[in-house]
Amino acid sequence: MLNFSYCNPTRIIFGQGQIAQLRQQVPQAATVLMLYGGGSIKQNGVYDQVKAALEGNRVLEFGGIEPNPSYETLMGAVALARAEGVDYLLAVGGGSVIDGSKFVAAAVPFVGEPWDILAKRAPIESALPLGCVLTLPATGSESNNGAVITRKATQDKLSFLNDKVQPLFAILDPQVTLSLPPKQVSNGVVDAFVHVVEQYLTYPVNAPVQDRFAEGLLLTLIEEGPKALAEPENIEVRGNIMWAANLALNGLIGCGVPQDWATHMLGHELTVLYGIDHARSLALVLPAMLTLRKQGKRDKLLQYAQRVWGLDPADGDIAIETAIAKTKAFFQQMQVPVTLSDYQLGCEAVDAVCAQLEKHRMTKLGEKRDVTLEMSRQVLQMSL
Amino acid sequence: MLNFSYCNPTRIIFGQGQIAQLRQQVPQAATVLMLYGGGSIKQNGVYDQVKAALEGNRVLEFGGIEPNPSYETLMGAVALARAEGVDYLLAVGGGSVIDGSKFVAAAVPFVGEPWDILAKRAPIESALPLGCVLTLPATGSESNNGAVITRKATQDKLSFLNDKVQPLFAILDPQVTLSLPPKQVSNGVVDAFVHVVEQYLTYPVNAPVQDRFAEGLLLTLIEEGPKALAEPENIEVRGNIMWAANLALNGLIGCGVPQDWATHMLGHELTVLYGIDHARSLALVLPAMLTLRKQGKRDKLLQYAQRVWGLDPADGDIAIETAIAKTKAFFQQMQVPVTLSDYQLGCEAVDAVCAQLEKHRMTKLGEKRDVTLEMSRQVLQMSL
Repeated sequence: MLNFSYCNPTRIIFGQGQIAQLRQQVPQAATVLMLYGGGSIKQNGVYDQVKAALEGNRVLEFGGIEPNPSYETLMGAVALARAEGVDYLLAVGGGSVIDGSKFVAAAVPFVGEPWDILAKRAPIESALPLGCVLTLPATGSESNNGAVITRKATQDKLSFLNDKVQPLFAILDPQVTLSLPPKQVSNGVVDAFVHVVEQYLTYPVNAPVQDRFAEGLLLTLIEEGPKALAEPENIEVRGNIMWAANLALNGLIGCGVPQDWATHMLGHELTVLYGIDHARSLALVLPAMLTLRKQGKRDKLLQYAQRVWGLDPADGDIAIETAIAKTKAFFQQMQVPVTLSDYQLGCEAVDAVCAQLEKHRMTKLGEKRDVTLEMSRQVLQMSL
Repeated sequence: MLNFSYCNPTRIIFGQGQIAQLRQQVPQAATVLMLYGGGSIKQNGVYDQVKAALEGNRVLEFGGIEPNPSYETLMGAVALARAEGVDYLLAVGGGSVIDGSKFVAAAVPFVGEPWDILAKRAPIESALPLGCVLTLPATGSESNNGAVITRKATQDKLSFLNDKVQPLFAILDPQVTLSLPPKQVSNGVVDAFVHVVEQYLTYPVNAPVQDRFAEGLLLTLIEEGPKALAEPENIEVRGNIMWAANLALNGLIGCGVPQDWATHMLGHELTVLYGIDHARSLALVLPAMLTLRKQGKRDKLLQYAQRVWGLDPADGDIAIETAIAKTKAFFQQMQVPVTLSDYQLGCEAVDAVCAQLEKHRMTKLGEKRDVTLEMSRQVLQMSL
């Protein structure tokens, strides 16, 4: 196991009816900016529950945060928060709303051009306090310190990490996920699955606790994901997915182990160029990424084959290839496509993504920094 | 899964050489009281590392905190801290030192008789900040909010839980555990194992993530525990045990699931009456406790048999009995006795423990509050 330092101060408040707990979490005197997405929270009752819990607070609203939240949109929230003296942010939504709210939290008190937080890793002196009501389990953003923001004008999708934007609390009520469209349920399961893989399928460092936890999350997602599609009213299944997706990226399973994230870097470029949903971009890239790098990842791939898919590691390459095929089949079972041609994309997309990777200096990726631009090109070609 | 609220704000700083990180964690201006146990830290280099890291701080010392830390001893530390204006506590030791330091943290600013914190659950208005350097992985106390304190004069062993005494940080350097006597290594592994069992072997609530995590910790302890005895210089093994013991009782695996803790209640009385090491008292009680309650715990026992011991759950009672026998054999493999007669105790001990349980109103124990005093008596008789 490698050395690490880990702290997760976000309070998780899990279960049905827990949105009412907002009253205990948000200071009565706070001027709250409630940030949300396309407005589904007004149909499914979440909006009303939040407003009821915050009765007594001055609450402003900023809706319309899009998937892959954009700098352009978010700067509107920054202007509103500054003009109205907002001193508390409440993100009500999925990973995009929460990521966007993290950027707003850091940008409101920022002196200078807030894009520098992403483009120049400018230091963040302070940030507004932030709480979350999660409506779409997927990214784990509700209890980590990271955010990914897109600048439409320049086709940049960049991330930042800062403890000052870690949410103070996250309310996880599986009830609110029952109204999600199946596509979002699928995306969430696949996103969480790939988050685990990025922290697990690298090389062994004798870290059995982390390995068992990662395998436990993968097994849960494989078991519960299809159930969520088949039994859309099953709230227990939704709860299990919500908790698994949270733990997939709250930092715990990544403690003391190498991490990859090459699949994410390629996926980000596919999303920014072609608008492919984040999770779907990962499903496109991951199988080929594992196949191309199967020598470097051999030991962990054999372990994955055995402990997640029940294969015999003595079968060597066959076990590895079968495990990758089963991974792909799982994505398809979750109704998520696994080839670029499913999106009517061909070789021109390979060139375009590689140009973006070069522009963003993503030319040494992966846990060993050995995924060159040429290898990324091969991965994309294998995903055609 | 049941509803829950969970937050663990303790920063874990893991790995070799990390004691030097104290410099970044403890404010330079703090007057620190360093609390420790029997003085082994002066032999193994930990004391010197701590003192070097805190150069520049005013550091006072309070040694001699015994296993099962006593109110009588700890009140000496309270008096010292009050007299010297101590404003920061640093626990350097295992669960007993850390538990004791939590009591001191709460007792120093407490108005009135500090024993009331335990005996009357008196509210804690404030506590001194507390950090830990862990030297004995076992209890998980380094990153939870609980402590167990013994009052020798009255033979009471009582616990309290309070977020105000949760350590701010815990330094886990496996290097410092290499000098532990084998008995303490064994005790630590068994203690952590039983902590997991108390949160896992109850009844199913459809919580696969928690179940996989608990099983992962049990499997790790079963695999690494004997290795720690056989390869006492293997620091990777020590690191895995240290991390497993921490996660066994940092609150995570107990989120949203029923919890038992009956074995602990009986064990506490055995310790206070006969001075049996905490972990050893648990090993005495657990096998009989599981056997007597095998109907109420049937589903989880079958799951345990299958997923932890690789048995076939179709074998029903035989699988359950084999799993319990394997649990007992694991304790013995860790050189921990499993009968009262190993301690030259007989029926008189059964009576004495039951009298203590009655005195402490421990007459409805377990996840269903159905473990009566009569059942506790049977458990102890089965452990003769």
